[in-house]
Amino acid sequence: MASIEVGILGATGQVGQQFVALLTHHPWFRVAWLGASERSAGKPYREATAWRLPALLTDSVGRLKVQAAAPAGAPKLVFSGLDSSVAGDIEAAFAQAGHIVVSNSRNYRMEATVPLLIPEVNADHLALLAAQGAATGWKGRIVTNPNCAVVVLAMALAPLRQFGLKKTMITTLQAISGAGYPGVPSWDILGNVIPFIGGGEEEKIETETNKILGAVKSGRVENHPVTVSAAVTRVPVHNGHTGSIAVALEQQPDLDTIIDAWNSFRGKPQELGLPSAPPQPIVYLTEQNRPQPALDANRDDGMTVTVGRLRRCPVLGYKFAALGHNTIRGAAGAAILNAELMHREGLL
Amino acid sequence: MASIEVGILGATGQVGQQFVALLTHHPWFRVAWLGASERSAGKPYREATAWRLPALLTDSVGRLKVQAAAPAGAPKLVFSGLDSSVAGDIEAAFAQAGHIVVSNSRNYRMEATVPLLIPEVNADHLALLAAQGAATGWKGRIVTNPNCAVVVLAMALAPLRQFGLKKTMITTLQAISGAGYPGVPSWDILGNVIPFIGGGEEEKIETETNKILGAVKSGRVENHPVTVSAAVTRVPVHNGHTGSIAVALEQQPDLDTIIDAWNSFRGKPQELGLPSAPPQPIVYLTEQNRPQPALDANRDDGMTVTVGRLRRCPVLGYKFAALGHNTIRGAAGAAILNAELMHREGLL
Amino acid sequence: MASIEVGILGATGQVGQQFVALLTHHPWFRVAWLGASERSAGKPYREATAWRLPALLTDSVGRLKVQAAAPAGAPKLVFSGLDSSVAGDIEAAFAQAGHIVVSNSRNYRMEATVPLLIPEVNADHLALLAAQGAATGWKGRIVTNPNCAVVVLAMALAPLRQFGLKKTMITTLQAISGAGYPGVPSWDILGNVIPFIGGGEEEKIETETNKILGAVKSGRVENHPVTVSAAVTRVPVHNGHTGSIAVALEQQPDLDTIIDAWNSFRGKPQELGLPSAPPQPIVYLTEQNRPQPALDANRDDGMTVTVGRLRRCPVLGYKFAALGHNTIRGAAGAAILNAELMHREGLL
Amino acid sequence: MASIEVGILGATGQVGQQFVALLTHHPWFRVAWLGASERSAGKPYREATAWRLPALLTDSVGRLKVQAAAPAGAPKLVFSGLDSSVAGDIEAAFAQAGHIVVSNSRNYRMEATVPLLIPEVNADHLALLAAQGAATGWKGRIVTNPNCAVVVLAMALAPLRQFGLKKTMITTLQAISGAGYPGVPSWDILGNVIPFIGGGEEEKIETETNKILGAVKSGRVENHPVTVSAAVTRVPVHNGHTGSIAVALEQQPDLDTIIDAWNSFRGKPQELGLPSAPPQPIVYLTEQNRPQPALDANRDDGMTVTVGRLRRCPVLGYKFAALGHNTIRGAAGAAILNAELMHREGLL
Repeated sequence: MASIEVGILGATGQVGQQFVALLTHHPWFRVAWLGASERSAGKPYREATAWRLPALLTDSVGRLKVQAAAPAGAPKLVFSGLDSSVAGDIEAAFAQAGHIVVSNSRNYRMEATVPLLIPEVNADHLALLAAQGAATGWKGRIVTNPNCAVVVLAMALAPLRQFGLKKTMITTLQAISGAGYPGVPSWDILGNVIPFIGGGEEEKIETETNKILGAVKSGRVENHPVTVSAAVTRVPVHNGHTGSIAVALEQQPDLDTIIDAWNSFRGKPQELGLPSAPPQPIVYLTEQNRPQPALDANRDDGMTVTVGRLRRCPVLGYKFAALGHNTIRGAAGAAILNAELMHREGLL
Repeated sequence: MASIEVGILGATGQVGQQFVALLTHHPWFRVAWLGASERSAGKPYREATAWRLPALLTDSVGRLKVQAAAPAGAPKLVFSGLDSSVAGDIEAAFAQAGHIVVSNSRNYRMEATVPLLIPEVNADHLALLAAQGAATGWKGRIVTNPNCAVVVLAMALAPLRQFGLKKTMITTLQAISGAGYPGVPSWDILGNVIPFIGGGEEEKIETETNKILGAVKSGRVENHPVTVSAAVTRVPVHNGHTGSIAVALEQQPDLDTIIDAWNSFRGKPQELGLPSAPPQPIVYLTEQNRPQPALDANRDDGMTVTVGRLRRCPVLGYKFAALGHNTIRGAAGAAILNAELMHREGLL
Repeated sequence: MASIEVGILGATGQVGQQFVALLTHHPWFRVAWLGASERSAGKPYREATAWRLPALLTDSVGRLKVQAAAPAGAPKLVFSGLDSSVAGDIEAAFAQAGHIVVSNSRNYRMEATVPLLIPEVNADHLALLAAQGAATGWKGRIVTNPNCAVVVLAMALAPLRQFGLKKTMITTLQAISGAGYPGVPSWDILGNVIPFIGGGEEEKIETETNKILGAVKSGRVENHPVTVSAAVTRVPVHNGHTGSIAVALEQQPDLDTIIDAWNSFRGKPQELGLPSAPPQPIVYLTEQNRPQPALDANRDDGMTVTVGRLRRCPVLGYKFAALGHNTIRGAAGAAILNAELMHREGLL
Repeated sequence: MASIEVGILGATGQVGQQFVALLTHHPWFRVAWLGASERSAGKPYREATAWRLPALLTDSVGRLKVQAAAPAGAPKLVFSGLDSSVAGDIEAAFAQAGHIVVSNSRNYRMEATVPLLIPEVNADHLALLAAQGAATGWKGRIVTNPNCAVVVLAMALAPLRQFGLKKTMITTLQAISGAGYPGVPSWDILGNVIPFIGGGEEEKIETETNKILGAVKSGRVENHPVTVSAAVTRVPVHNGHTGSIAVALEQQPDLDTIIDAWNSFRGKPQELGLPSAPPQPIVYLTEQNRPQPALDANRDDGMTVTVGRLRRCPVLGYKFAALGHNTIRGAAGAAILNAELMHREGLL
């Protein structure tokens, strides 16, 4: 029986709905509080949000009265799917008031004492929290997960660090759900691709990756030195960001060695048996035309990153395709896994 | 009044229909002969093909009786949109019989005495034809245009040769029309992307580009030494192949210098005022979210390559997006422009 | 040389852009004035609008400074693509000030002295204008065209009035451009259909049709008595509203007679040779799987309505499919044809 | 533990794959035999078929060796997803040899002694089986489920029989999976709708409905007298056939009475608690823009038909929208439910 009450900030948005859907049958966490804009406050959640997911909205959450996005009355653990335009102040207010904010927003990701977490990759970054209170004056804490495209890249690269990651280039083909709701107008994307995503998407990929893959030394993250170049595109896909990725490595492992590194990759979530942990976080698909968002994004409830088509690259050495579910592994599911890890580590 | 009779091999296919559509109002060439498989032979074209283009099929062509794909009775100039599984033998038979075969098929593109032509880029490669007869024993000649994805890359790179092209990487987002008809099943591509295209698509990009950008020396092409790495994907777009491209150059021109090189690029077709020549073969779009297939692929009747988003690349130096209409600039229109050039050069 | 200056109200919207595109090479009308919201006023049109059509925006219009939507300084003839939420007051202000407002908005369509015009169908409804001044106090006049789905139905039914139209049912499959911009979020419509369109779409179809098909008697329209039932759906199509239509007729003509009635249907625009008039306003397609928006919506620059699949209906007698381009024949092109008719009738 | 061995005819096709997916965790039935064309025979299933569903193919089925479509060695209970071009002979051969063939193919649906079954609607039609042996000479039996579009219509109409069903009109918007694989070419349907489906789709709707809704009297079905008119269209949706439906009833119930009739409708599957039975076979959705295939087709594992937008129709009296999952409720799931019913009725 789920006994830990949690709140959701930005509950009526695209990521907020995904939080609700994923937490509906969660064994530990129970949605007890929903925060959104003033416009929604006071309404039952079912009225305040236009539910847009195939998963059914349960009555127990549908009847919850939406609150303004202020700390009073919220549970200690709060997930945030807030838009970055407002997340900065609101999340700080919650942290100030003693809440643990497990956030999907970008605002604090690059702060020195804020973990930018992928539990399979850098669970030890939680050590940054020790210094967060002193650095910020917050009674509570903020923990973040990466940008939805970064997760795919960082997870695919993590097992390759052992071979000496030097450079990587990624061209993304990103799903429309990554833009939130209403997000991309259908006129713009139906039967089309757009070689641009606003909000500094490429810059995020080129900076967050280094922090995530970095090591904690003396209480701070030493960024991984890999050089990252990103080119982003939007494609008419509902869910699932695909990356066409090339890497330069110091060593020259053969292809099977790399595939083994991916398939055997495990982390803290698997070791601890966290509820949202996929059994095998990275799965290499042997079919020559995979991964594909329509077939593979939902694998293991959307928490597995799939990789395929590893081959030699005449320019950088290796190239391959990778895919992850952007609103689950790249957003709400990522944050929930972060909170599960924190719970088991005694940090809630 | 169009006075040069032409034939179309593979007239009922996707590229064949595009040939018919583009030649309908051509000032020089008049469709007088249509060749297809035995199954279609003897039927009026309108019955033999399921016309699938928005452009109307005229009665004069619609009533033409389709012929078997054999040289007897065909005009001297023949365009070929044949599938590569049959193009090898048939095109050779036509060349043998004295025809000029202007082909979109891949079969002879890499032959030493067969020009692989983009008239703006390498019109001088027509010089290869002098030796073709001796090398092959053909009375006629075969001239080819590149793979539909290669055209976009090669045209975007051509004006950069002056800066010392060293390496390039491209991830393509290719339209479904590139697969012919029936081509990609809708089940596979609707709301999806596929990180693979059969038929050696990546290998074609990685080899044809070097020949196209090469120089003719002593009657043969000396390949350009640029290293090319390609990763291809299929996207749910009707027409227009997009490339996310990065390049390493020997020189370090500033961005405006590169943009000028693209915008001021002209070639033989513009100099000669060929009927299908776009006024400006490469157009740099300044909007940050362009080029897009739905908006830009048809520019100047589909013969212009559009480029955008030039910016620094931390790994290779420069990156940008490029787009071309795959069945026009990358197939039927390319072949027609080749024939126009040959006509004006006295080679028909 | 286009010598009649025209203005466009709502110039930055979806229909406004279509007005600009269609008027770019118009032989009579020249865009001299663009009106939009306060937010856009003062900016060059190219900056004020995010141009979203494949047709290129010319510099002459792109540099025009957008004006607030007030009559001062506007040409006498003004096209309106205003959203209905604001069209009521603004159009009245322009009419009050002596302008001829040729409007695509729904606000005045059902007014007794406002023509709801399809020039091929009811050009004589212009007679309503005689009484409009007295009824409204306006110095100028307002003329309207129908809702974008109504045009398809009303044109398909017009030639059937001779057989005694009794009842009709239509299920529409409407394109996303009908919702304006940003309009339908891609999340909602990609790979989906929505059995609803807001703004009273079904009611409009069920009332406008009767006025359009009615006859002017003693200076007012006597509605046609046909009973209309509409069910609307939104589909992931860029342009082109399809209708699945059934009709009950008093007479029982055979199918060829009905097809002849459609194919031979002509009206004032054809008689007068108006610039935007399609040569044959209704074209019956004999292929069993037509009309289709992707292939047929742009026929004759989007001004032709295509019909197909006429067959017996066990319930009402006859059924068929019909298609029209919703932002051209159903909006901007319709209004331009109205203005052309008025010009030739000496009403401008 | 699933103890009843079953076979699947046409196992490599679109419906065949859906059978495999749905039976993977079935409590009673275990896939022990897979039949397909000679071309596939002898190969492990994983090689013989290109698996195209998001559900993972298990190794136990993936390793099964595909057999030729002949009775020898097949289990007694055989599901058939065969194409109708071959189903006639093969299914007869299996029935002849003593098998129970639970078929999704159309070939025997209208035979007088073959039940055309929707277990919630006409479970009593199983009584036809008593005479099937004598009529056909088969040792075994054939039972069928309706065409995928008919299921939606027939289920929505079944609870309305009590009000006196007189006439009904349906325009369908059908998903691409209904055409099998490779099925509809993407070139034809991306961003498009097609007002036609081959194979006599409209005729099937207009005849099967009457048999399904009919009553068994003296061992034969007396067709329901409702007059049915169907117009079919194909839309770019993966799964889920939508119907825009109008009905004329003898009585004039108010809207709430009809909604109650739908929501309270239950049948044998619910009474018997069959494993694939949805708890509520018809669910009325109160949101004004539902049902939608992307959101509602998978409800209750694809076995629920959703209905919405009930309103008055000026022509027939009532109109509404209905939706069902075409390869589950309309094909493989329907057949499995039929077999479950037969098992519980002691007919296997």
